[in-house]
Amino acid sequence: MPVATQSLEELCINSIRFLAIDAVEKAKSGHPGLPMGAAPMAFVLWDRLMRFNPKNPYWFNRDRFVLSAGHGSMLQYALMYLTGYDSVTMEDIKQFRQWESKTPGHPENFMTEGVEVTTGPLGQGISNAVGLAMAEAHLAAKFNKPDSQIVDHYTYVILGDGCNMEGVSGEACSLAGHLGLGKLIALYDDNHISIDGSTDISFTEDVNKRFEAYGWHVQHVEDGNTDIEAIHKAIEAAKAVTDKPSFIKITTTIGYGSPNKADSADAHGAALGKDEVQATRENLGWEYPEFEVPEDSLKHFRKAVERGAQLEEEWNQRLAEYKSKYAEEAAEFERRLSGKLPEGWEKALPTYTPEDKGLATRKHSEICLNALAKVLPELIGGSADLTHSNYTLLKGFGDFEKGHYENRNLRFGVREHGMGAICNGIALHGSGLIPYGATFLVFTDYMRAPIRLSALSHAGVIWVMTHDSIALGEDGPTHQPIETIASLRAIPQLLVMRPADGNETSGAYKVAIENRKRPTLLALSRQNLPNLAGSTIDNVAKGAYILSDSEGTPDIILIGTGGETHLCVDAAEKLRAEGKKVRVVSMPCWELFDEQEEAYRESVLPKAVTKRLAVEAASSFGWFPYLGDEGAIISVDRFGVSAPGTVALEKFGYTVDNVVGKANILLSK
Amino acid sequence: MPVATQSLEELCINSIRFLAIDAVEKAKSGHPGLPMGAAPMAFVLWDRLMRFNPKNPYWFNRDRFVLSAGHGSMLQYALMYLTGYDSVTMEDIKQFRQWESKTPGHPENFMTEGVEVTTGPLGQGISNAVGLAMAEAHLAAKFNKPDSQIVDHYTYVILGDGCNMEGVSGEACSLAGHLGLGKLIALYDDNHISIDGSTDISFTEDVNKRFEAYGWHVQHVEDGNTDIEAIHKAIEAAKAVTDKPSFIKITTTIGYGSPNKADSADAHGAALGKDEVQATRENLGWEYPEFEVPEDSLKHFRKAVERGAQLEEEWNQRLAEYKSKYAEEAAEFERRLSGKLPEGWEKALPTYTPEDKGLATRKHSEICLNALAKVLPELIGGSADLTHSNYTLLKGFGDFEKGHYENRNLRFGVREHGMGAICNGIALHGSGLIPYGATFLVFTDYMRAPIRLSALSHAGVIWVMTHDSIALGEDGPTHQPIETIASLRAIPQLLVMRPADGNETSGAYKVAIENRKRPTLLALSRQNLPNLAGSTIDNVAKGAYILSDSEGTPDIILIGTGGETHLCVDAAEKLRAEGKKVRVVSMPCWELFDEQEEAYRESVLPKAVTKRLAVEAASSFGWFPYLGDEGAIISVDRFGVSAPGTVALEKFGYTVDNVVGKANILLSK
Repeated sequence: MPVATQSLEELCINSIRFLAIDAVEKAKSGHPGLPMGAAPMAFVLWDRLMRFNPKNPYWFNRDRFVLSAGHGSMLQYALMYLTGYDSVTMEDIKQFRQWESKTPGHPENFMTEGVEVTTGPLGQGISNAVGLAMAEAHLAAKFNKPDSQIVDHYTYVILGDGCNMEGVSGEACSLAGHLGLGKLIALYDDNHISIDGSTDISFTEDVNKRFEAYGWHVQHVEDGNTDIEAIHKAIEAAKAVTDKPSFIKITTTIGYGSPNKADSADAHGAALGKDEVQATRENLGWEYPEFEVPEDSLKHFRKAVERGAQLEEEWNQRLAEYKSKYAEEAAEFERRLSGKLPEGWEKALPTYTPEDKGLATRKHSEICLNALAKVLPELIGGSADLTHSNYTLLKGFGDFEKGHYENRNLRFGVREHGMGAICNGIALHGSGLIPYGATFLVFTDYMRAPIRLSALSHAGVIWVMTHDSIALGEDGPTHQPIETIASLRAIPQLLVMRPADGNETSGAYKVAIENRKRPTLLALSRQNLPNLAGSTIDNVAKGAYILSDSEGTPDIILIGTGGETHLCVDAAEKLRAEGKKVRVVSMPCWELFDEQEEAYRESVLPKAVTKRLAVEAASSFGWFPYLGDEGAIISVDRFGVSAPGTVALEKFGYTVDNVVGKANILLSK
Repeated sequence: MPVATQSLEELCINSIRFLAIDAVEKAKSGHPGLPMGAAPMAFVLWDRLMRFNPKNPYWFNRDRFVLSAGHGSMLQYALMYLTGYDSVTMEDIKQFRQWESKTPGHPENFMTEGVEVTTGPLGQGISNAVGLAMAEAHLAAKFNKPDSQIVDHYTYVILGDGCNMEGVSGEACSLAGHLGLGKLIALYDDNHISIDGSTDISFTEDVNKRFEAYGWHVQHVEDGNTDIEAIHKAIEAAKAVTDKPSFIKITTTIGYGSPNKADSADAHGAALGKDEVQATRENLGWEYPEFEVPEDSLKHFRKAVERGAQLEEEWNQRLAEYKSKYAEEAAEFERRLSGKLPEGWEKALPTYTPEDKGLATRKHSEICLNALAKVLPELIGGSADLTHSNYTLLKGFGDFEKGHYENRNLRFGVREHGMGAICNGIALHGSGLIPYGATFLVFTDYMRAPIRLSALSHAGVIWVMTHDSIALGEDGPTHQPIETIASLRAIPQLLVMRPADGNETSGAYKVAIENRKRPTLLALSRQNLPNLAGSTIDNVAKGAYILSDSEGTPDIILIGTGGETHLCVDAAEKLRAEGKKVRVVSMPCWELFDEQEEAYRESVLPKAVTKRLAVEAASSFGWFPYLGDEGAIISVDRFGVSAPGTVALEKFGYTVDNVVGKANILLSK
């Protein structure tokens, strides 16, 4: 096939393919097969249908694009370069997969402007996309007017076999079908090859039928390699269906064009190799040297710049009109997009004195959420079917359901993993929404991947996790977190909060709301806890602080978190009555404490005071830097037991007497 | 409905219901709704169809029963008591959810004889059941003869809406459909209520259609409350379909019989309350006091004892006949069931000297797996679509596929979570099988729940996790484990192994194979590593040991794990050349080291030597107890970066020079 006979479309599609081939070849690492096979659908989407402005990747009303099959990242980088994004230059493409380049191995929203979400771990992208579409639906319902649709974009996804095998995508897509998210359109690159070879060896289900079962509008394009008009028509048909998300299975050949590696796992995850690259060039009639894009092709692709500018300009006019007619809504809309919180929102957070009735911190959390919901209209979220255990209902704000997208209670069903990825999508929609997702703390194990990704990808989600220790009682060891808190504290950038009472819960929410680029995880008690003297909202931001103290240098420091802090307080009283000098430190958040200046840290935990006793109803794992060689901890370093919570606490040593006893042992050493 | 008019079946079914109601009421905690609604299907199954021997819960050829909706545990305890298991007496039922009782909040196989697997975390049970059915299919293909079916049992599951919403069940059931596991029969308690209320708010997909898409045989029993003949017929029909797993949707009413709480979330997760219990008694015409089972009912249920004895006796005869005809196979079969490993199996493990070519530990793992496969026919497993990256293929042992269940390579597809639960099911089949499951280490985040459950429920699975650090390179931070190892070390009872070379990999497998009631997780390198002088298979069992030493008390101890141990070895050489006395400790497994006697631990890490430097390409989280106040670590306490592995290692400080430099800083303090 000599170049002369290539249509402009073919030229463009092959431009995508060879950028991917050449970049992977240069890096000697990467996944050429997906870009080669999915180039036609990607071309149709980016060239003919998708609305975006390459020169302003963050133009609000752009269609969102998610490459859920993130290993095919060169597909996205090629499209971004070709359509004129400044964030991906030819130099960047040549730096594919190199240290701190703009073109990392998988798309990373925090490295590359214009990448919406971070994908790679399979199934996350399509699930993020459900969140993006929910965010769009919500804002549209909130702000659009019959005569002005200022929120009006699609969310497009390319996903592969791997994404469809992952349970998380099933969870999110079942919910998307339930919600009828008509502006979510997923293109399934059905290349029937995964790393292990043909999908015949493990994946023979009828995927389209499954999506029909979820309530999606489903189509099949049988020749995704060359029939670009069929792809175009299918996407148009998908857009025409407004009450269901759309799933388009597009059958393609992985590594299309490679004479010896196409349609095999060999094309999936490694460079084609010099000879095969040459053979592919010959096979596709590609006469251009590596990293060279034919002028006609580039010129055609770059029309996206003008088109994008025009789309944004049209929208700006629409917004201006909207402003003139609906000044109040427009002001609110713009505030949201700016990421600014409403003046004085934090005054809504309740404060407590020791005289106030002690409640579970999950209950304090409910009070915070409901107080904040009134002043922060961007707060939106819910629970994975534990609404009345997690206490996460925003009262009076209705359920987000088909036809009621303006409502703010998300009903995730028993889908923790999907919930996590959806919350990340909502946070990364870039429209100021503050999502929260809730379940029992132990079930963070079901959604650890999206929690990690929230930290990695700067998604300011609030993870509301209740039933945070053996004190939850009868549900037993499958439900009792032991190592869970430690395993979450180990995640970089994640703020893990274990508030001790009402003020600390308010303080934890203050931190969580303020951190719009960093997720916060709240570990909350099932059981009631007293409100402590000395606790304050502001001290939580320091991570740890002195709750009560004796005169002079303390003999011992008791360090408590969450539900066990009050044991330290009471034990300190007893020890002081015995003549000991005791400091009580409340430590709701390790990460924030670690980030304080040395002088502050020294003022709370002076090196000179080596007798330190921590009390936390969880694993001791990770605690030692705060305890030092002479410290100790009352911890749970085994699985829990089914029993009433009060019994479990007592059996595991969470009594004032045991704290006093252990402190005295330390003091006598 | 006066008692007199109750049929014997009704009497039996109501006996189940009221045991559940009364036990939950006494505990003031638990889930009465599911047992009340699912009692009819459970009765049909346990009374008419399921083959088991209450007096020998571990009779090999029993049908396996899994209550995937584990919160309804009283259903299972009631059935076990009624049919005559010694492990659940009436006294035990009265101790429901109390400290260390045989009747914990959720079914726990390690607490209650006759409970097959530990359920509660939703979706796990049905996925374990896929593993149980795979184990049966495998052993049947291995041992059955045309004239003797010594392996021939069903796996029955009761699952609810929650299990069906969880992605893990989708993964496992898609695979079960692919594999055509005809002896897996799932009863779906379709009560359309979850904790948050009607499933209408979040779960409106067509579940049966989804299972059809997976390739299951699907039925619907419309009246699961009273039409026990329809339930019976449906299960019989399911048994008649031998080439597909069966899914029977049975529509029921949660809390059936409770006049004010039936068909509502109120019946789901809390005691009915004294008045409602009384009202339910009246409504169902139940005149018996609490915890009293009518004699006719108990007598009928207890026929299971005789039936069970007879079933086992028949099977014993079958086995005797089999032994006489197929002595060799019978001996092997009995060896497997006994849990005894073949004499001298460990001799298959390769050993290495420093002269042997350095390989990646994932490659050493492949060599071990293939060597062991020949001497341990019970070794069975595979990867979640990363076979040729994890190096987990057992060469020459074929793929476990429909029609080839005798083969031992499991092709899980991109289904980490499902793989985990399936491996647990295989391990807990109790037939000596040694399952392994593999993926990239970072994706343990997708399957943390089953890894935790393997530790909790004594499932001796081998988790083969490769690409264990930033050294994996270009795939970047989404694929690079940082906190992953720490988060796994934090799990109680789990053995986490990070071998440094060939001998240590062999040693890790020795520990893993020997521990049949405790899971082992191997963290293996992508990159090649040298074989170290001083490494041995046996030392791995000690968790940490002295790899090389200077004369006398060392000035400093360098502690390495996995891929960084060799840096310690080389750094020690340099430091010794500078005149320092240096000990190198290799520490492949913290847990095993912690379990050594104090004297051994002191001999390896003497308290007197306070200068200690650990080198591990991972988070420092959890390391401090081994380092002490004066120790230090070269660690990665931030997310990784996409770059070639050698570049990443160097940038993060994993060079001999940096180890020498950091050691000298410590020594100069």
